Amino acid sequence: MGDLIGNVVETSLYYVPRAEFRRVRTLNGPLAEVAALYADMARLNTLYMIARAGSGHIGSSFSSLDIVSLLHLSELDPRRGDVFFSSKGHDAPGLYAVLIAQGILPEDKLHRLRRLDGLPGHPDIGTEGLVANTGSLGMGISKGKGLVRANRLAGRDRRVFVMTGDGELQEGQIWESLVSAANDRLGELTVIVDHNKFQSDYAVARTSSLGDLEGKFRAFGWHVARVDGHDLAALEALFADLRRVTDRPKVVIADTVKGKGVSFMEGTAIDSDVEMFRFHSGAPKAEEYLRAVEEIEARISRRLAALGAMPIRVENVGKPEVPPFAANPARLFPAYTDALLAAAARRPDLVVLDADLVLDMGLMPFAECFPERFVECGIAEQDMVSQAGGLALGGYTPVVHSFSCFLSTRPNEQIYNNATEGTRIVYVGGLSGVVPAGPGHSHQSVREISAVGGIPNLVMVEPCCPAEVGMLLDWCLAEHAGPSFLRLASVPYPTAARLPAGHRPKLGCGVELRPGRDGTIIAAGLVMVAEALAAAELLAADGLSFGVASLPWLNRVDAAWLAGLAARTPVLVTLDNHFRAGGQGEMVLAALARSEVRPLPRCLAIGLEEVPPSGRNDEVLAALALDANGLRARIRAFLGGDRGR
Amino acid sequence: MGDLIGNVVETSLYYVPRAEFRRVRTLNGPLAEVAALYADMARLNTLYMIARAGSGHIGSSFSSLDIVSLLHLSELDPRRGDVFFSSKGHDAPGLYAVLIAQGILPEDKLHRLRRLDGLPGHPDIGTEGLVANTGSLGMGISKGKGLVRANRLAGRDRRVFVMTGDGELQEGQIWESLVSAANDRLGELTVIVDHNKFQSDYAVARTSSLGDLEGKFRAFGWHVARVDGHDLAALEALFADLRRVTDRPKVVIADTVKGKGVSFMEGTAIDSDVEMFRFHSGAPKAEEYLRAVEEIEARISRRLAALGAMPIRVENVGKPEVPPFAANPARLFPAYTDALLAAAARRPDLVVLDADLVLDMGLMPFAECFPERFVECGIAEQDMVSQAGGLALGGYTPVVHSFSCFLSTRPNEQIYNNATEGTRIVYVGGLSGVVPAGPGHSHQSVREISAVGGIPNLVMVEPCCPAEVGMLLDWCLAEHAGPSFLRLASVPYPTAARLPAGHRPKLGCGVELRPGRDGTIIAAGLVMVAEALAAAELLAADGLSFGVASLPWLNRVDAAWLAGLAARTPVLVTLDNHFRAGGQGEMVLAALARSEVRPLPRCLAIGLEEVPPSGRNDEVLAALALDANGLRARIRAFLGGDRGR
Repeated sequence: MGDLIGNVVETSLYYVPRAEFRRVRTLNGPLAEVAALYADMARLNTLYMIARAGSGHIGSSFSSLDIVSLLHLSELDPRRGDVFFSSKGHDAPGLYAVLIAQGILPEDKLHRLRRLDGLPGHPDIGTEGLVANTGSLGMGISKGKGLVRANRLAGRDRRVFVMTGDGELQEGQIWESLVSAANDRLGELTVIVDHNKFQSDYAVARTSSLGDLEGKFRAFGWHVARVDGHDLAALEALFADLRRVTDRPKVVIADTVKGKGVSFMEGTAIDSDVEMFRFHSGAPKAEEYLRAVEEIEARISRRLAALGAMPIRVENVGKPEVPPFAANPARLFPAYTDALLAAAARRPDLVVLDADLVLDMGLMPFAECFPERFVECGIAEQDMVSQAGGLALGGYTPVVHSFSCFLSTRPNEQIYNNATEGTRIVYVGGLSGVVPAGPGHSHQSVREISAVGGIPNLVMVEPCCPAEVGMLLDWCLAEHAGPSFLRLASVPYPTAARLPAGHRPKLGCGVELRPGRDGTIIAAGLVMVAEALAAAELLAADGLSFGVASLPWLNRVDAAWLAGLAARTPVLVTLDNHFRAGGQGEMVLAALARSEVRPLPRCLAIGLEEVPPSGRNDEVLAALALDANGLRARIRAFLGGDRGR
Repeated sequence: MGDLIGNVVETSLYYVPRAEFRRVRTLNGPLAEVAALYADMARLNTLYMIARAGSGHIGSSFSSLDIVSLLHLSELDPRRGDVFFSSKGHDAPGLYAVLIAQGILPEDKLHRLRRLDGLPGHPDIGTEGLVANTGSLGMGISKGKGLVRANRLAGRDRRVFVMTGDGELQEGQIWESLVSAANDRLGELTVIVDHNKFQSDYAVARTSSLGDLEGKFRAFGWHVARVDGHDLAALEALFADLRRVTDRPKVVIADTVKGKGVSFMEGTAIDSDVEMFRFHSGAPKAEEYLRAVEEIEARISRRLAALGAMPIRVENVGKPEVPPFAANPARLFPAYTDALLAAAARRPDLVVLDADLVLDMGLMPFAECFPERFVECGIAEQDMVSQAGGLALGGYTPVVHSFSCFLSTRPNEQIYNNATEGTRIVYVGGLSGVVPAGPGHSHQSVREISAVGGIPNLVMVEPCCPAEVGMLLDWCLAEHAGPSFLRLASVPYPTAARLPAGHRPKLGCGVELRPGRDGTIIAAGLVMVAEALAAAELLAADGLSFGVASLPWLNRVDAAWLAGLAARTPVLVTLDNHFRAGGQGEMVLAALARSEVRPLPRCLAIGLEEVPPSGRNDEVLAALALDANGLRARIRAFLGGDRGR
């Protein structure tokens, strides 16, 4: 979760200026040695960016950087229009470091990873040199095929290089995409598998073994090559060889080491059957950062000396700015873990399914206590959801986990298919909402109410505080016979929300957390209820009395509850941590229009109107006017600027 | 399209009563011969059901029936709890015939294929003996794995047999599902590939060749067997052998003949490189039906004689009831084909992608005129959509086709990912809405507005008459810079809708097709606008003056247009060919609540509230009260029963 929340490294930070890369590029020496040096310099800058941002994927950037450096130094011909992009997208910091070194990206972006108007957590074509929006796994080969087809139609002789992860190969779309690439002999396409042996949680072999990977690609009609992904001379020779293979798409299975380049970060250093890989995401601790810098710098010095060149010049930028962290933020996931364990102890029919997010979804204790009822599915959400369907048909109650952005969309048809069977399945989506904003739009889940909320018997709920998590999980497991979706914010967030004593969930009914004479804000979830309460405080200081009602039911509203509320409020504001279109607010306002309540209060619907930007949580919420200040301003503007004191 | 629309065979129809199957089951003879006989009798009843229903999949039922018969006669042990189901679901009529023969399904259901409260077009667990809801391709193996896991948890020693198609293997979920089945050694699972070599349109080898199928399954760690799927002795021996393979999941690649059992329907009779398979879906013509019955009956007689048994007794039921067909129905697809061709002639950047529905989506002329700009993707919607993303990044304008139910949900995340790139891509979904109702809920697309309508820059449109099709396609291609979704009804439908002379689409604005004093119905699309107009006629006869506005914008409404309409109507009715939740009506009513229009008209939202049933179009629309009579009744009830004459 370090990745998601941010944990800025409090020590002086160091980076290599672009001029040094320029110098190294022109050194007299074998390409393989220059590229190795270049990759290490990019590792330093990757570490700098991630330490400064407080989050990012070190392991995956480091495993791919030798390959990415070599491709950019020699294999890609920019005049010809060759392109490279990464399907997994986790390795964006490493790629950014190389693109900055190459002069493709402006140098000052180095200081703005995961910041507003900086470099998004996952690739976006709004960034110079980026070819495709990636980070939702499994799409890259298909996109590469589309680029190849476009080139063929336009008569452009260009090559397309796509990097994938190895865990990513668990996604069905990968295999779906291989078929026509072979049938249509897309020889312009080269896929490089960064086979670093670890995925988000554990070793790939433990999570969901890929088996005979070479055999699989061969059976799909691809030309297969295997190489040590850190042996730059071997890589150079291989890419030269592959230029001669033009009648088939090509895959390079590059055996790499996750975290390569810093001894204590390397995947080979851990017992892959037991341990988690610690540097998949998130920033290192200050002392880890400094040790890593030291180790990489020493190697760079040795390499430069061997080439007869001057030592490297590194810039020291002092301690990074620390974003405003709140004291004692509320956290939903510890409450979820506890509630799940308690439910599992009561109910032998409860089975947990996960898609390579055992840590982020708070499932480690469950997996330890109930290993026989824990199914780790790997990054295979469609298969996971349909397996849950089968388990439910077989008499069990599956609780299905992934990040909301993936869970509500990748297996969207599978969730509907299960729903048509009327079985009880609880889908639990983490990382819900616009924050954390660092990872960018592939991970910001602001579309799940519309994506699955329209399924008639599926009820969506979102708790506003830790105390509500267990109540809602229990409601899904015991009181609702059909499918449900529990939408959970992953970000720790300070909140003033407190449920009344003895509160119990009642389908479609909200709870008024704060009374108000001039208007009422209806919101759901940890972040938006907190901001609504904070906005109400600000409005009170303006002389405006605004109430806040938490409505944890995202696609249901009780007609009587709503009519009661609407009858006594002159202004109703709905607030979505979601696109406004298709969100909870639209559902509430439509219900209000259909009701017999007349006159209707004046209504304002607040939610996202555009694909959200990547950035630090506070700056993104402010930019979207979804923080307390923004809400206050929007509500005052709606009322007519001069209302209140 | 015959499948979708229904085309009842006007001749006497014949079926084999269950008692005859009982007699044959107990004949003294080798299992293989009895099973072959049984399968042919089931073929007769399959033909009967499809001819009577006017639609259904003959080819796929016939290719699988020898295997399905043998499994039910000998391999499945019902006391033990072994189960069989078909993932593709197309072969439901054949399976129903066998389940009726076995006494699992009531015999009278034989007469109610694709009728309300009868046998749905695709499998549903509401039907006796059906194990899982299938028909959305690619989910079956995953579901089977879930059942195996449930059995293991419960300590039940049961086997699970899943049949898939061969074209179905193009779905990525298939390959996604193979991995953990092998890793977890799910030896209880046997997958049978009905390898009949044809998919919806053409030969599998032409659409998207599967290449080395055995090699693929082997590389995924499965035990692979290959067999002639019509050689019942070989099948019997193979299944006996497979009982001994318990350490791995097993796949049987059964080489079969699509349409097996009727010479002129068999896939082997056609030139697979050029011709379409004519009997994939839809009913045969009357003379074809009679020739087929004659051929199968003759073979049954020979087989019975060889076993020394009496000839078969067949029931004659006379001509089937013909549903009310309207004269001169409007058809959207010819207009779509013309508009697409015209656009392609003007725009060299237009590229068409299709997922094995070239016939149903009206794409044959395009594929003939512009073969270099036609990409047949096979049943691989995720790959298709992400390829479209790549083509758009490469400067082209992709127009992407499938049935709406699949296109809006299977590649849901891929559509969003493309949208975040801001490129212009037109998604065209056919078979939209609750009718045709014969295929059942896997194909009834009543969820696409919610599924993709919330994507901020994606505009969804649906034409109400053929004249509007081209206008809206051109709007999507020329006037809108981002992604769009053109929702098309496939069913021919009579309509009184006529656009005013010189009408041009204007984003978010509807067109008032009929004025009304007492209220206004807002609807979209061929079917609902037609029914709204017809309901308005009925209400007029009741003395109630109801207007009808067609709003082709499914996720946009112009505030001024809506305010103008709302200000002059006392009652507003929204009408969705979609779930009410997340439909166009919810969007319109929320916009109304947010508007400054006060007093608000009384509002009624009509749409689907539950997963729709399978049945004949007229009876399903009536059951859902979505036809003119139903709408009239609901509007009158809303007004208070005694309103009007």
